[in-house]
Amino acid sequence: MSDLLRPVSTPDLAASAGRLREALRQSPPLTHCVTNAVVTGFTANVLLALGAAPAMVDIVGEAEMFAGVASGLLINLGTPTPEQRAASVEAVTGAAASGTPWVLDPVAIGVLPVRTTLAHELAARRPTAIRGNASEILALAGHTAGGRGVDATDGTEAAAGAAQELARTTGAVVAVSGPVDLITDGDRVVRIANGHELLTRVTGGGCALGAVMAAFLGTARQTGDDALTAVAAATLVYTVAAEHAAPVAAGPGTFAVALLDALDAVTADDVAAGARVSEETR
Amino acid sequence: MSDLLRPVSTPDLAASAGRLREALRQSPPLTHCVTNAVVTGFTANVLLALGAAPAMVDIVGEAEMFAGVASGLLINLGTPTPEQRAASVEAVTGAAASGTPWVLDPVAIGVLPVRTTLAHELAARRPTAIRGNASEILALAGHTAGGRGVDATDGTEAAAGAAQELARTTGAVVAVSGPVDLITDGDRVVRIANGHELLTRVTGGGCALGAVMAAFLGTARQTGDDALTAVAAATLVYTVAAEHAAPVAAGPGTFAVALLDALDAVTADDVAAGARVSEETR
Amino acid sequence: MSDLLRPVSTPDLAASAGRLREALRQSPPLTHCVTNAVVTGFTANVLLALGAAPAMVDIVGEAEMFAGVASGLLINLGTPTPEQRAASVEAVTGAAASGTPWVLDPVAIGVLPVRTTLAHELAARRPTAIRGNASEILALAGHTAGGRGVDATDGTEAAAGAAQELARTTGAVVAVSGPVDLITDGDRVVRIANGHELLTRVTGGGCALGAVMAAFLGTARQTGDDALTAVAAATLVYTVAAEHAAPVAAGPGTFAVALLDALDAVTADDVAAGARVSEETR
Repeated sequence: MSDLLRPVSTPDLAASAGRLREALRQSPPLTHCVTNAVVTGFTANVLLALGAAPAMVDIVGEAEMFAGVASGLLINLGTPTPEQRAASVEAVTGAAASGTPWVLDPVAIGVLPVRTTLAHELAARRPTAIRGNASEILALAGHTAGGRGVDATDGTEAAAGAAQELARTTGAVVAVSGPVDLITDGDRVVRIANGHELLTRVTGGGCALGAVMAAFLGTARQTGDDALTAVAAATLVYTVAAEHAAPVAAGPGTFAVALLDALDAVTADDVAAGARVSEETR
Repeated sequence: MSDLLRPVSTPDLAASAGRLREALRQSPPLTHCVTNAVVTGFTANVLLALGAAPAMVDIVGEAEMFAGVASGLLINLGTPTPEQRAASVEAVTGAAASGTPWVLDPVAIGVLPVRTTLAHELAARRPTAIRGNASEILALAGHTAGGRGVDATDGTEAAAGAAQELARTTGAVVAVSGPVDLITDGDRVVRIANGHELLTRVTGGGCALGAVMAAFLGTARQTGDDALTAVAAATLVYTVAAEHAAPVAAGPGTFAVALLDALDAVTADDVAAGARVSEETR
Repeated sequence: MSDLLRPVSTPDLAASAGRLREALRQSPPLTHCVTNAVVTGFTANVLLALGAAPAMVDIVGEAEMFAGVASGLLINLGTPTPEQRAASVEAVTGAAASGTPWVLDPVAIGVLPVRTTLAHELAARRPTAIRGNASEILALAGHTAGGRGVDATDGTEAAAGAAQELARTTGAVVAVSGPVDLITDGDRVVRIANGHELLTRVTGGGCALGAVMAAFLGTARQTGDDALTAVAAATLVYTVAAEHAAPVAAGPGTFAVALLDALDAVTADDVAAGARVSEETR
């Protein structure tokens, strides 16, 4: 951990997360996803379970206008076909014109050239948040050649400096997923120690979190919360739900199913009771 | 409810549904689906669970000939890539040439321009059935700007007149999905009050019903039943299965899994015992 | 069964399968899949449950280089869009250059022209293994017009001769999936009588096995085992897991979930205890 960071008191991030969770349930954010073919069904189910309204609109000629009416937008680069690449650019244009908050998930960049180029272009267009594993964040910040896929090959803390740098360069809140999730706006650094190893054994375990962040950013726009709070809330709600799901699972198959049930059930009180969150400011 | 409608005795729609359900199990209809990327796996699993034979053929150069040999066809416009748009037109051509019954599901039309144009073109090519939520049926009938996605934003009864009008214009049986499903051929109006709210919390809950309709239309072609009976049978079997699934579910995740088990298990007797169906004729 | 075949003692195929299963868990093979849109999520979950590292890279400009770094590659032709067709050719080129073992799964060839042409082209590029149902293997060997989709319409034994012939022509290990799985390198013929009928009621039940073969081929490259052993090991581990899953399933929905749990749990001892395998040599 950088010695530029010092602990500060953050008693109410968990409380804010719980408040946003209930606000989302009361007023489902229309969450526009341009996401990869592997996880699109699971991602929609995660959003529906949580109480959000998913819309997987990745068609050229539709994505721009839809991003303008959506509450939040996810651009996930996991399977970037030519149609999806063009639709992603359209969607970001629509989001920018309307102020729709959006999340960039640069899946497997570094190693794979087509998405790497696109990720750098999109990162320059001021995403509200960027979510990735340590390898992807390091690659997007220009530090390494990146990951070999959606698996992290670098530890979360190894990307802490790169995450802060990337946040300052892009203006985005940057979230590094891993055993401890690290979230930063360049100055504040939040660490969340919730979650469960089984999340890494389900395809879309990370990708769906990007969609949840887009949903919470949509809700935060209504409640007036900032982006760091929204991204931390998404992570807390999702990872606390994962902790509720794990004990009723017999393996990765039942875990994925139980996670959906838990996302439906999880309350503000559950988040407050379960959150393991700390914050430091540089 | 329009005062042009008057109740008539329809004691045997439930019996017909049960009979068709068993006929489907005895002779699995080859069900050709051109459907959206979000729900394609779930849709195939729904068809397999029911006892039908799914084939997700959405490739240009293959869709036309395949629609000609299939028992029934679904065209779902949820993620209409250029390849799928062309394949949809091909498939409808093949279905028309061979008399294959086909279902049009105009997902999220009204708001989204690319699919809206295509939906109107396809609706003019005499689908056997059209399935949508109230917003989508209203949009296809030209009454409103349509829905914001696969969620209904209008009540089912609000689309009753538009559904009858659309049925008369297109020659299709029109099914409006909602808490009460409404099915009409323009004269007869069937209402089915089965189903469960959890169906709206699973992605593909409605889209898969369109595929089930295509399967039942294929079976009805063998048994000599009419399209209204087939579409009502599909709806009854699917929604009665949903009612069987709900009590064993702890949330939307376990519900989706239990629905597949229930579709496999549901019998003619279950349908007869559970059906809540009424009919009126204009 | 051809009278050219005579039984030989093969006491240790099950032991080899168990050994490879544990080796895979110790060192997860990076398994590159170009697979169809219907099963991509389920396939990734099968690989993750087993302990492999899936990467669904089907993008032109990325597939060739990625196949070069992957441990094993699957080319599944279930939904061959133009992008996937070009990416498949790229991936096979990359695999050939780096010696990456690869599996060809010619889904629904024979009936459907686009994929049939491509399957023949790819089969001529020396796949390490070919997996299909009897109809598909017969079609690829030039014996019939092929299947009507992913369902077998011919019995497994009906394809035994065609499988041996195809193995000799292409140099591939050929696996014919069915109630009894038949695997041959042209000389040795292995039959595996494990598995469960519910595998045919889950979409991707067969397609995911092709991905598991690619994963085991990647592991075998490290352990020095031959391709026939790897393909037989994949089949044994997968079908023994299916037998563990079936008793805890209430239908096809719960079976698919239980299969993922069982793939995670299945051990070398389970495989040794459960294997029903025989071998003959021509």
